Amino acid sequence: MSGIRIGIVTVSDRASRGEYEDLGGPAIQAWFQDVVASPWQAIVRLIPDEQDAIEATLRELCDDKGCCLVVTTGGTGPALRDVTPEATRAVLDKELEGFGEQMRRASLAFVPTAILSRQTAGVRGRSLILNLPGKPKAIGECLEAVMAAVPYCIDLVGGPRMETRPERVVAFRPKA
Amino acid sequence: MSGIRIGIVTVSDRASRGEYEDLGGPAIQAWFQDVVASPWQAIVRLIPDEQDAIEATLRELCDDKGCCLVVTTGGTGPALRDVTPEATRAVLDKELEGFGEQMRRASLAFVPTAILSRQTAGVRGRSLILNLPGKPKAIGECLEAVMAAVPYCIDLVGGPRMETRPERVVAFRPKA
Amino acid sequence: MSGIRIGIVTVSDRASRGEYEDLGGPAIQAWFQDVVASPWQAIVRLIPDEQDAIEATLRELCDDKGCCLVVTTGGTGPALRDVTPEATRAVLDKELEGFGEQMRRASLAFVPTAILSRQTAGVRGRSLILNLPGKPKAIGECLEAVMAAVPYCIDLVGGPRMETRPERVVAFRPKA
Repeated sequence: MSGIRIGIVTVSDRASRGEYEDLGGPAIQAWFQDVVASPWQAIVRLIPDEQDAIEATLRELCDDKGCCLVVTTGGTGPALRDVTPEATRAVLDKELEGFGEQMRRASLAFVPTAILSRQTAGVRGRSLILNLPGKPKAIGECLEAVMAAVPYCIDLVGGPRMETRPERVVAFRPKA
Repeated sequence: MSGIRIGIVTVSDRASRGEYEDLGGPAIQAWFQDVVASPWQAIVRLIPDEQDAIEATLRELCDDKGCCLVVTTGGTGPALRDVTPEATRAVLDKELEGFGEQMRRASLAFVPTAILSRQTAGVRGRSLILNLPGKPKAIGECLEAVMAAVPYCIDLVGGPRMETRPERVVAFRPKA
Repeated sequence: MSGIRIGIVTVSDRASRGEYEDLGGPAIQAWFQDVVASPWQAIVRLIPDEQDAIEATLRELCDDKGCCLVVTTGGTGPALRDVTPEATRAVLDKELEGFGEQMRRASLAFVPTAILSRQTAGVRGRSLILNLPGKPKAIGECLEAVMAAVPYCIDLVGGPRMETRPERVVAFRPKA
């Protein structure tokens, strides 16, 4: 059986040209390996900081591959080439501002430059799309801050049931 | 005398069809009964999760009924039928992002899924419009978190003076 | 030598007509005098709450005067004449939502009406534009809350290196 699908998209000019090893994508995959209890498979992509390419990849992973969760790493800062939030907003049906607020607040406990991150999240069809930072250390900090809400969000948009290992993250589902 | 007017809009497909008792609207009314000291009357509406109907109701309560404060309950989540924030933004003159941030932060003390709420607020003419959650328990938590700023906001847009019972909520008005 | 340039824009109908002394602009200038260690000069403007005038002033200070940082004071509330955030968003290339979140959170420690502020920030070309409140006391509270991230933000968009006095604000620059 294939289980649920999680899309992992590394957005980086240098890594996509092979000038730089992609550390963000593998860090995300290892984190979910540790936390997600349901059978799942990763669908990974490595693309440059091009808005069209990011949008096309997000649409493919949500619409064609049926990923219930798609996470990106990289491209969320203020620099000219950082366009991941713009691409994400362009494909979202509904933006969920609370994710960006919560991830920035969590990162502020570590670095004051967390306010420079433009990370966001939202839903497209039956998928949740979530921007993560580029730095591997910051990826785990952000996922820890929001993961408890992810399975219920996927429930609400009609996606598959995702279970977590409760010793790592307790997925919260309000009583009806 | 009629006093000031507060619009209370329950947005719910099921409650508007009578399949479900509206608990949110009465919870809001009871909360304001306890907190607002000025003479006031509630103008209540119960409508389905339809963006056009929500927009029309918000316009009616602000423009025709002269409500200085209009609160909604329901329809702020990520699901397909949740369109209250979209309808609210469509009729606002100015969005006040701080309300949504503060209400999500307050709710996070109770449930990690608070980040899924898309609640917002803002002004239309001389009225403040404020989205609240659908669950009665969460309504009070959110109102407690923002009410101290509501009377001064209404002052700033030229609405009537609203007084609160200070043993419940101290309305803050900065010295000029 | 001229050093780096910081634009300081007071937005106020009354102060621009001379009915009221501009206290915000001088408060900002004094704050930076205390905190910025690099040689710098202030370029100051005093304009009414008119969206066109604010946009033109922000463009002039960023594009023609080469200010790496432009701060505004005033016009961020919910009132009809408050249009500084609208003007700011109209000229930004990228909005940085984390600044507004962090400044509102910092101000909430002092006044519950901090949630009424619509302050934002973002980048235009090689400049960072930052909205501050109108009240001199609140200006310092907001600058203290975000300044550690300002020099690195300017680095990221290709602006000049700004140094701070570390006994006042430690500018944070992540290791590459």
